[in-house]
Amino acid sequence: MTYNVGNYLLDRLVELGVTDVFGVPGDFNLGFLDDVLEHEKLEWVGNMNELNAGYAADGYARVRGLGALVTTYGVGELSSINATAGSYAENVPVIHIVGAPSSAAQNSHLRVHHTLGDGDFKHFIRMADEVNVSTAILQPATAPFDIDRVLRDAVVHNKPGYLMLSADVASAEIDPPTGPLEVKLAISTNAAKTAFKKAATEFLRGKKTSILADYMTARLQATDNLQRLIDATDFPYCTLMGAKALIDENNKQFAGLYLGTLTADETRTVIEDAEAIILSAVAFTDTNTVGFSHKVDMHKAINLGAESATIGRETFAPLALSDALDILTEVAVEADAQPMDFTPFTREVEQPAASDDALTQNQLWDVVASNLDELNTVVVEMGTSFFGMASRGFPKDARFIGAPLWGSIGYTLPALLGAAVADRDSRGVLFIGDGSAQLTIQELATVVRRGLNPVIFLINNDGYTIERAIHGKKLSYNDIAPMDWQKVPAAFGATDENTVVLRASTVNELLDACAVAQREKDKMIFIEVITDKDDMPETLRKFGAMAAAANKLVEKE
Amino acid sequence: MTYNVGNYLLDRLVELGVTDVFGVPGDFNLGFLDDVLEHEKLEWVGNMNELNAGYAADGYARVRGLGALVTTYGVGELSSINATAGSYAENVPVIHIVGAPSSAAQNSHLRVHHTLGDGDFKHFIRMADEVNVSTAILQPATAPFDIDRVLRDAVVHNKPGYLMLSADVASAEIDPPTGPLEVKLAISTNAAKTAFKKAATEFLRGKKTSILADYMTARLQATDNLQRLIDATDFPYCTLMGAKALIDENNKQFAGLYLGTLTADETRTVIEDAEAIILSAVAFTDTNTVGFSHKVDMHKAINLGAESATIGRETFAPLALSDALDILTEVAVEADAQPMDFTPFTREVEQPAASDDALTQNQLWDVVASNLDELNTVVVEMGTSFFGMASRGFPKDARFIGAPLWGSIGYTLPALLGAAVADRDSRGVLFIGDGSAQLTIQELATVVRRGLNPVIFLINNDGYTIERAIHGKKLSYNDIAPMDWQKVPAAFGATDENTVVLRASTVNELLDACAVAQREKDKMIFIEVITDKDDMPETLRKFGAMAAAANKLVEKE
Repeated sequence: MTYNVGNYLLDRLVELGVTDVFGVPGDFNLGFLDDVLEHEKLEWVGNMNELNAGYAADGYARVRGLGALVTTYGVGELSSINATAGSYAENVPVIHIVGAPSSAAQNSHLRVHHTLGDGDFKHFIRMADEVNVSTAILQPATAPFDIDRVLRDAVVHNKPGYLMLSADVASAEIDPPTGPLEVKLAISTNAAKTAFKKAATEFLRGKKTSILADYMTARLQATDNLQRLIDATDFPYCTLMGAKALIDENNKQFAGLYLGTLTADETRTVIEDAEAIILSAVAFTDTNTVGFSHKVDMHKAINLGAESATIGRETFAPLALSDALDILTEVAVEADAQPMDFTPFTREVEQPAASDDALTQNQLWDVVASNLDELNTVVVEMGTSFFGMASRGFPKDARFIGAPLWGSIGYTLPALLGAAVADRDSRGVLFIGDGSAQLTIQELATVVRRGLNPVIFLINNDGYTIERAIHGKKLSYNDIAPMDWQKVPAAFGATDENTVVLRASTVNELLDACAVAQREKDKMIFIEVITDKDDMPETLRKFGAMAAAANKLVEKE
Repeated sequence: MTYNVGNYLLDRLVELGVTDVFGVPGDFNLGFLDDVLEHEKLEWVGNMNELNAGYAADGYARVRGLGALVTTYGVGELSSINATAGSYAENVPVIHIVGAPSSAAQNSHLRVHHTLGDGDFKHFIRMADEVNVSTAILQPATAPFDIDRVLRDAVVHNKPGYLMLSADVASAEIDPPTGPLEVKLAISTNAAKTAFKKAATEFLRGKKTSILADYMTARLQATDNLQRLIDATDFPYCTLMGAKALIDENNKQFAGLYLGTLTADETRTVIEDAEAIILSAVAFTDTNTVGFSHKVDMHKAINLGAESATIGRETFAPLALSDALDILTEVAVEADAQPMDFTPFTREVEQPAASDDALTQNQLWDVVASNLDELNTVVVEMGTSFFGMASRGFPKDARFIGAPLWGSIGYTLPALLGAAVADRDSRGVLFIGDGSAQLTIQELATVVRRGLNPVIFLINNDGYTIERAIHGKKLSYNDIAPMDWQKVPAAFGATDENTVVLRASTVNELLDACAVAQREKDKMIFIEVITDKDDMPETLRKFGAMAAAANKLVEKE
């Protein structure tokens, strides 16, 4: 066996923690897929289509730190490019390997299939350039350099990378790597650290301080550093909605979710009235602030980013988030900074009373939040699910996956697959509405095929409820095709051996379904939950009104 | 009611023959969708996801001459961009209208949802620029000009166009069109016509002549002109595989399908040995020539394109295809050109003998070709279906839809939907394999929802047979998830009222199924056809070998 470019790439992926590769075969990638199958540390996960494969690789990367996706040229890569853009927006490193026409065909500008027929083979890498941090057209002579570059860029910046790999290049012989790929850069300088320490000490002196953290804290592998800061200082902390469960919500200093004007009063004062506020990798968006309704005085902020920190008008760079957090842990005591006054967050969760009445959204989220503690990878679709879960407490050590900025409906079902493949020991729990599930529903077949055991709550509320919240409450474009969700799992290969299909339209039925889920740990549990189409979490209703206002939409009745 | 930008755009689309708009709602397009619903000549067709919507709009445009697609910004438009690229490659004019964040959000570079979060709102139009002939960011002041420009470019060039439409721009008041949009350009000059006539007369004098036509003849609305040339001259004609049924295959001068080295001998000589050959909008690709194995001597060719014609080394331009064909009709007689010797094509179709043995691919295509005459929009997936149908005769007036250059698997199911919506009087017939159907299967729900009555042949041969033809015959990446196809229609809302679900694994069962299809004309007929996973049309086997050679793939056993 010769050692080829494909082997090199695969070895590097394995080195960085990848053991499963997602995608769809196509004639331009078949040779490379042979190498995937033959790699003893890799498993091939064939998906139902390329968009789903891209979402699955994203879900996998959120758990493992890196994901990989293989598609064919043109038709395949473009089908998944929305997933790549999502990975970019949500800061998830996924390597997209595109099997491409032979170098000979490209150099001769031949009119071959899966091209636009104009002899230009660079249309799609130019498109990829818009949504990847780093791209390369691999050639045998430079493949090691370019593979290492793209992988390092992806991991360091938490963004997707793109590699175009012609069939003949994939099989070209090259030398194996001579050493490990270094992806942990020590970016902070001593000067920046020293200056930041001095400024932070002065800034925090005697002030009532609180912390607001966003999900990038985890991506930048600074969660432990943040935890230490919290433990050392008694500062209360809040999270933005995408950062749910970043730090255990049962911690005594947890003061709740900050969501702009929709924030509970006792939480809002912690953030808005503090004398000093430490922002850990915070990015305010229209979604996580409900239309930029946040009130965080940046004059009072120590604003920590991926590669720099700002205090007032002064910026300290290059300075890694983890280093900045460590410095703050050190200086907070020294500066005698005080915890901002706060009321510890108490779970809103209450087990609803037994009832055979039609299930409400409020009951739904209360029941699931109080019944699924031990399940620990919770994937939540943007929509009623996201807003419903956001306000509920979350069990310790549970992993939370959502995509509030990109917000591509249908993302979560394949993402659940990817996350479940990435961590077989963590049972997945999915919350998804019917309007979202229809986009990617076929990936259920892969969940069945892989023998996975997630609990899927399919919330059937008769259409696009998040859109109804925004506009066209009664208009036909927010209706969807009538599906028979009870029959969906069997169509995609589920049997009594591997799946339990349930339906819950009352509190009692939902409680029963949750009990089955707890009992049948080795099967997929598919629960169709029925709620009224106009019923929605109150935060979603307000979010909808904000979005309508941003687009100047006036409801016509 | 004020008249707004959205109204202007919709009126223009209606003027050009569009009566149905495909797509998926999203908060940035909801206001515009209100205008779609309110337009008395338009119907909204909500799809299951955006890729499917793009494919459906493409299928619709192939029937109507123009299609329209509405998605939301970022997540929606990128999900459908593979369909747009396909429309570009296959020369289909589809207008993609993208509901975008408000001008205020864009001008302030806000971090809003469905963006990459970097404040750059032009990432996606730059991507669209790669796969559209014309794009515009609509603004109230220039919207009429830009809408007219993009629509005209799309129609004239048979390519997709892209319009970015912010919610506030869609509702901005403007004046209605002052006159119709002129999209029929008289491109030929008298000088070009005269010179071409003279050269063609000399070139054709006394020569044994034949014709090779490609599908662009139809897109350029020159089919009638070609028909007149054929009728006036007795020249035999062949078509390339994408041009199947361009001209009635029962015509006495039809000499068969030209497919490079895979062409039947009696057909090949007609093309390769003629003294003169007229090429009508021919574009040779690796697919339609089976790896560029065609032997057409360009020194003997009159090569007619969309906007020019070439004889030997001389080019005549600007010269429309229809004009060039009319001139040839006139001069062929004058020049005493003779028809090339040929054997009229006889259908390979023979009704196979009744049998209860396992159905073979050969039997399958023979049965369907001889049993479905009156059904007249036949949509054929790239793969066994395309190669199986290609060699069979085709009923008169039947419409053929396929995508041999772009070849994006899964395309045909939504394309069938679009074609059926475009022409309710023409029953659709779909041939699709299981490996392809899984990508877009949810669109079956829209077929059911719209009350359509196609006949769907789902060829269940246990995986990606076209890929097996190329490489990895026995490798696991060419397996797919085990589906239960008999249960699929019901999952997507089909009932006994509107659908008949059948299964055929023998000639007899298939004949029975075809009889049911003929009888139950108002229902969708879903026929799962079972064939062996290694059985495939001979042309596909050879095509696979060609593709493997192009990618230097060596089968490992």
